[in-house]
Formats: sequence, C-alpha cells, structure tokens
Amino acid sequence: MKISFIGAGNVAWHLSQALETANYDIETVYSRNPSNARALTQQLYNAQVHRGLDFLDSNSEIFFLCVSDDAMEEVIRNLSLPSGAILVHTSGSKTLNELQELVDVYLDETIRTGVFYPLQTFTKMFHVNFSEIPICLESSNLDVENLLITLAQSISDVTYAVNSEERKSIHLAAVYACNFTNHLWGIAQDLMKKNDLEFKLLEPLIKETLRKALESEDIFAVQTGPARRNDQKIIQRQIGALKNNTGYKKIYESITEDIIDKNTI
Amino acid sequence: MKISFIGAGNVAWHLSQALETANYDIETVYSRNPSNARALTQQLYNAQVHRGLDFLDSNSEIFFLCVSDDAMEEVIRNLSLPSGAILVHTSGSKTLNELQELVDVYLDETIRTGVFYPLQTFTKMFHVNFSEIPICLESSNLDVENLLITLAQSISDVTYAVNSEERKSIHLAAVYACNFTNHLWGIAQDLMKKNDLEFKLLEPLIKETLRKALESEDIFAVQTGPARRNDQKIIQRQIGALKNNTGYKKIYESITEDIIDKNTI
Repeated sequence: MKISFIGAGNVAWHLSQALETANYDIETVYSRNPSNARALTQQLYNAQVHRGLDFLDSNSEIFFLCVSDDAMEEVIRNLSLPSGAILVHTSGSKTLNELQELVDVYLDETIRTGVFYPLQTFTKMFHVNFSEIPICLESSNLDVENLLITLAQSISDVTYAVNSEERKSIHLAAVYACNFTNHLWGIAQDLMKKNDLEFKLLEPLIKETLRKALESEDIFAVQTGPARRNDQKIIQRQIGALKNNTGYKKIYESITEDIIDKNTI
Repeated sequence: MKISFIGAGNVAWHLSQALETANYDIETVYSRNPSNARALTQQLYNAQVHRGLDFLDSNSEIFFLCVSDDAMEEVIRNLSLPSGAILVHTSGSKTLNELQELVDVYLDETIRTGVFYPLQTFTKMFHVNFSEIPICLESSNLDVENLLITLAQSISDVTYAVNSEERKSIHLAAVYACNFTNHLWGIAQDLMKKNDLEFKLLEPLIKETLRKALESEDIFAVQTGPARRNDQKIIQRQIGALKNNTGYKKIYESITEDIIDKNTI
C-alpha cells in the first residue's frame, strides 16, 4: 500500500520512517517548505518530493496530514486528492468532525477521514522507539478504522480506539505532564546555570520523583516539598529569591497555591 | 563512631539505614512522636528510642537533626548535647549560619555544626539507592568537613562541598524540577481519571520528554506543544476546558505565558 505525507515536520519525520520500516511504501512527501520535504525523502527509500497540493495522479491510498492545527484549513482548501482516498490527521487536539467538515467544504471527491495520533513528543534529532508509543485511532468508517488499526499495529504494540473528546482530554493531560514539566525542568536548569551549578546534580532526584509518580495510584499523595508542608517561611523566601523574574514567580505561586489547596481541603 | 538521629521522618528513615549499612553505629533515635522513633529503631540493629532531648550522657559524636525547618528552633531550644558533639542538619533551605546561631543562643556547650543535605526526595515506603544521591556538605570547621566527607563517601559516590547560598539555589531549582513536576503529573493523572482514561497511556511520552531534557544543554530549546508554537486556538480551547478548575487554569496560564515569552524575546 502506498502512503503520502502532507507535511514534513517532527511527526511526519518519525512516522513515515516507522511505516517504511514496517514495509509500507512512502510515495511522496509534500511540505510548504520544499527543503524540509527534500530532507525527509533523503531518509526514505523511494519517496519523492511532491510540489504543490494536487495529488489527483497519486497512487497513494492514505494521505497523512501532519501539519499544525492552524495550517490545516489552508492546506485542505488547496488540496486535491484522488477519489476514494483516505485523509488522516495526526493531531491530538483537532476533532474528527473538524477534519471532515473541512473536507466536505473544500474537496469535491469522496474522501474518507480518520485520526492517527501517536501520543509522543517528536524532535527530528531524537530517535524514538515506536513500538512503545500508544497510537490513538478514530474513524467513523469501519473500513478506515480497520485499516488504521492494521497500520498502527504494524509499528506499535499499543493501539487504542479513542474518540475526539477523549483525545482532547489526553492532549490536555499531556500538555501538563510533558510540555509543562519540560518547561519546569528548563527553569530548574536556568536557575542552576545562573549559580554555576550543574543541572546533572538534580538528575537522581528527578528520576526518583518520576519513578514514584509512575508507581502511584494517586500522585498527589506522594507530593513532597515546602508547598506540601505549607512551610510559609521557605515559600516566602523562595518567592523573594524570584523577585527579578515575574514569569518564574507566577509559576511558583500558581503551583504552590494549588498544592496547598489540595492538602487543606 | 556512634551517631544519633533527632527526628524520624523520611530523611532520617533512609539516611540512618544507609549509614548503618556503611557500618556506622546508630545509637539512638528521638522523635517528638515516639512511635515514629520506635518504627525507625525497628529497622535498625541496636538503636534505642531516645525520650526527650537531653543527650548529655550520649556516646554519639554526631547528631543528625532531621526535622523540618519550622521545628528546628524549638528542638534546639530544648536540646542538650555532650560538649564537643557535632550537630548536622539535613535541610536544603536552612543556612549553616542559621543553625550555628540557634546553637550559640540555646546551647552552652561547644558544639560544632555542619550541613549534610542529600539531594533526593524521600518517602518511607520507597527504597532509594543512596550511592547515586548527590550529598551536599558544608561546615566552617575543617575537621567537621572532613568527617562529613568521610560519612558521605561511605554511602554515596557523589559528594559536593556546597555553600549555603548555592544550596538555596539547588533547593529552589529542585522545587521546580521535582515538587512542581510531581504536581503537574498529578493534574495529568486527575484529568485522565476524570475521563476514564489510564494515566499509563502517557508514560512513554513522559519518559521521552525526560530523556530529551536530560540530554539537552538547553531544555527550553527542546520545548514542544501548543504554547511553544503560540497556537492560540488550542490554548484558548484548553483554557476553556479548565473553566471549572481555577487552580489548574492559573497553572496553565502562568506556564503558557512564560513559554510564549521565552520564544518571542
């Protein structure tokens, strides 16, 4: 089965290579920035750069739409797909209906839609092991759903049928669990650097915190630290130390307040 | 060498057992709550519960003060130690001077002081591998410092001489990197549970986020997600989904704002 990619960002980068490793044939890659498409095709065996969004002559059955939510409408407005094709987005936050509505508005042909959301953070330079990545699938068409299941199972051991509302909740939870924690680690690294201290010092502590959290039925219950003890002396002193950084201070206050609330209810 | 513990909380629990494993003799354990002291002595070979804070007859050379910063003054006010004893606190946020001043005010005997801060989160039920835990040491007395180094090296491969200002910075960084991230994972778990979704789904994503952060010279540079892209549609929709939880919403807004600021400067 032939597959094309629309978008050549972090998700397309990893997903196309994983599917190729599972013996699917990646036919073409399109990107608004052709040099990105070129870079990705160089990682693939036979894929060609596709210029423009006219895929009417394509032999692909499935088109993976790996563009940001913001760009989705503009891309679909200019898209032409062969009749019978399947268009699948890989976003955590866009509903299946939103995709289908754009397809209904802008595409004349009968196009079936689906969602193929790999629950992972992707960065081009970092290799990922797809087999452990949960893939969240959705389609209103049974044939498409079965096809997505087959595709997903060929690259991952963990596949889930997840509806759009559930996927939104997962995406929101992931923003806290991953994007926001990454930012907190960035702040910690910044605070250490400013005092000529190695971030590496915190590594065992971070790993142990994660281990405890992953083993906990209730992560709030294993909370430690000054906010957990409502130790106002330390809290006020730490807020004082942040007086020159309004952003860090607001984050400190909002999280501390919520931890204290959780423990005094 | 004999050692006594004042306090029987999470730090005393793990540190006393690690020192005993390294062949130090834990003589007594005091706790304001004697049943806590009892529970800890049951984990140790010969340690006795010490009732009250009069240690004048003790044979211990070192006394580990493992109480919360808030309780420190009250404990030292009632403390009697044999002349020549060494009193060491294990706190990340209390300076050596603050400890020395309390000792000067409340204790008649010549007591030397030091800091022995294991940079780790401790929970009684969770076994920790001390050998990887960085231990931050401080003393104004060379003999005490050397003794603390010997003690630290007997249980850990990673020991650092760190002054009080540096230790405060480490502690603040650790609050972000560990206490606060734990809370964010708690929120993610809560959001998943509310939608009958397993938190385990997020595990590969969390582990990958951590792996990338630990490998990054600049953690802010590997940031992903809607705030990093300043994707206001998703951001506003997610804030909307949090309208019933002011605490989560404030945290979302404060971190998102800081990520956007970092990427638009």
